[in-house]
Amino acid sequence: MLTGLSAFPLTPLNKDAIDEAAFVHLVERLVAAGVDSIGVLGSTGSYAYLGHAERARIARLAVQSAGNVPVIVGISALRTRDVLALAEDAEATGASAVLLAPMSYQPLTDAEVFGLYQAVTTRLSVPLCVYDNPGTTHFTFSDELHGRIAALPNVASIKIPGVPAEPAAARERVERLRALVPPEVTIGVSGDAFAATVLNAGCEAWYSVIGGLFPETALAITRAARAGDAEEAQRLSTRLEPLWALFRRHGGSLRVVATAAELLGLAESPCLPLPLKTLEGESRQALAAVLEELELA
Amino acid sequence: MLTGLSAFPLTPLNKDAIDEAAFVHLVERLVAAGVDSIGVLGSTGSYAYLGHAERARIARLAVQSAGNVPVIVGISALRTRDVLALAEDAEATGASAVLLAPMSYQPLTDAEVFGLYQAVTTRLSVPLCVYDNPGTTHFTFSDELHGRIAALPNVASIKIPGVPAEPAAARERVERLRALVPPEVTIGVSGDAFAATVLNAGCEAWYSVIGGLFPETALAITRAARAGDAEEAQRLSTRLEPLWALFRRHGGSLRVVATAAELLGLAESPCLPLPLKTLEGESRQALAAVLEELELA
Repeated sequence: MLTGLSAFPLTPLNKDAIDEAAFVHLVERLVAAGVDSIGVLGSTGSYAYLGHAERARIARLAVQSAGNVPVIVGISALRTRDVLALAEDAEATGASAVLLAPMSYQPLTDAEVFGLYQAVTTRLSVPLCVYDNPGTTHFTFSDELHGRIAALPNVASIKIPGVPAEPAAARERVERLRALVPPEVTIGVSGDAFAATVLNAGCEAWYSVIGGLFPETALAITRAARAGDAEEAQRLSTRLEPLWALFRRHGGSLRVVATAAELLGLAESPCLPLPLKTLEGESRQALAAVLEELELA
Repeated sequence: MLTGLSAFPLTPLNKDAIDEAAFVHLVERLVAAGVDSIGVLGSTGSYAYLGHAERARIARLAVQSAGNVPVIVGISALRTRDVLALAEDAEATGASAVLLAPMSYQPLTDAEVFGLYQAVTTRLSVPLCVYDNPGTTHFTFSDELHGRIAALPNVASIKIPGVPAEPAAARERVERLRALVPPEVTIGVSGDAFAATVLNAGCEAWYSVIGGLFPETALAITRAARAGDAEEAQRLSTRLEPLWALFRRHGGSLRVVATAAELLGLAESPCLPLPLKTLEGESRQALAAVLEELELA
């Protein structure tokens, strides 16, 4: 199930509350586009800024709106107790899988991270995707640790961050990890700018931020790569370079994609939880121009 | 009020709940020792791992147990909405001051951090201490930003992390910051190993982890430095070098101090919220030996 394009929608807010209508509309767009799965309450879904009740509500809305498309629900939290409660909520809601990052405040040791995954996977009844995102968790997985966690029950996929830009180096990086994890565990990429490279290197999944807002665009890249047309996948990704440049400039994808949703009328402005702010002034105008240029507006 | 030794106790757990008796006992030891203030729900107090109700309970227990000693309550959270709610709780509890770090999941911009402090300080009725701790928040303050925030209403102190070890360089660093903040805003240090150096360099406060468990030891250093006996303050700090070495080895002070509390019978074992673990095996034995050697056991 954890293969192909997994699209991660925003959780748009209005004032301090979740904009449920806007969220449901985002999910319905993904279903209509035909994405392979929908990942809610990832970093793009602002899970870290929401309370348990809000997260349970988002999971429920997603499952209700997704039809037959599998929904992956993020269950990350700083404390193991909360992760276990969120896992129970996700399962009760009908999530097809869960996504877990080693979120940290105090820097975590390898033993602590392994202990977290062990505690959670033994109680799960759905597949789990390991979420490796050092830019937000500040925890760096060794491949050896990935191998040990991937061997735990119910682990079905690993969501890795960026890889080397050079195709041969990217392939080597993926193969090094692949050699350490069971064959049934899929490997997926999350850094959108690297997606074509990583899919071309043999990864089975793209856990995609732009897929949550521009599903057709992300699907075209995914399908070209999965059909073996590496050149076309790379061409379609390179075409989006002005967007990747904005992701780099604004410290990641979230503020850019959230601002794009506002510009497209898919979310109220501002749609991010304070203290986070969407782009203003010149940065906002530059994004609007890029969306126009790439025919995403 | 935010001068001298501010002692930060642990929030010890037993199983998944707060060990209220152990917490109250820690606070009572600080009162008996005569610390200048007590800082609860800082990083040492595991604020990031506790729910709002748990935090309100800890704040209340601290104020009830602290007698005339001022209590500083940590109100940090990822979301501005939650920080504002925690600030209200702290004020209602009788906190003398609040402590606020720019906790992050998505990396924060300077404008977002300024916006957070602005939103909070305008609604406060007690003094606020700015908590600068890049090791856990992953946000780095510029001195210029410190200056702008320190000029906001109700800002009374800045808690800075380590400084250069060399006394002249430490003094220069403190003076650079001092020149940018209003004279009534105190500057305090939080890295225990740097405390003597920074107090000798003219800082008014030590926000102390070891002060939460070994208040007499921390008071002796603070009093020597504040009385102008720089040499004695440095000597007393250098004597603790085996403890500072363990802090460096274990990625900070928390696991070491929490394990010390367990070894001293001041907390049950394990007393940290999972996934965090206190020290085991050889590391635990090494700490026990150091406590013995330093006559802290």
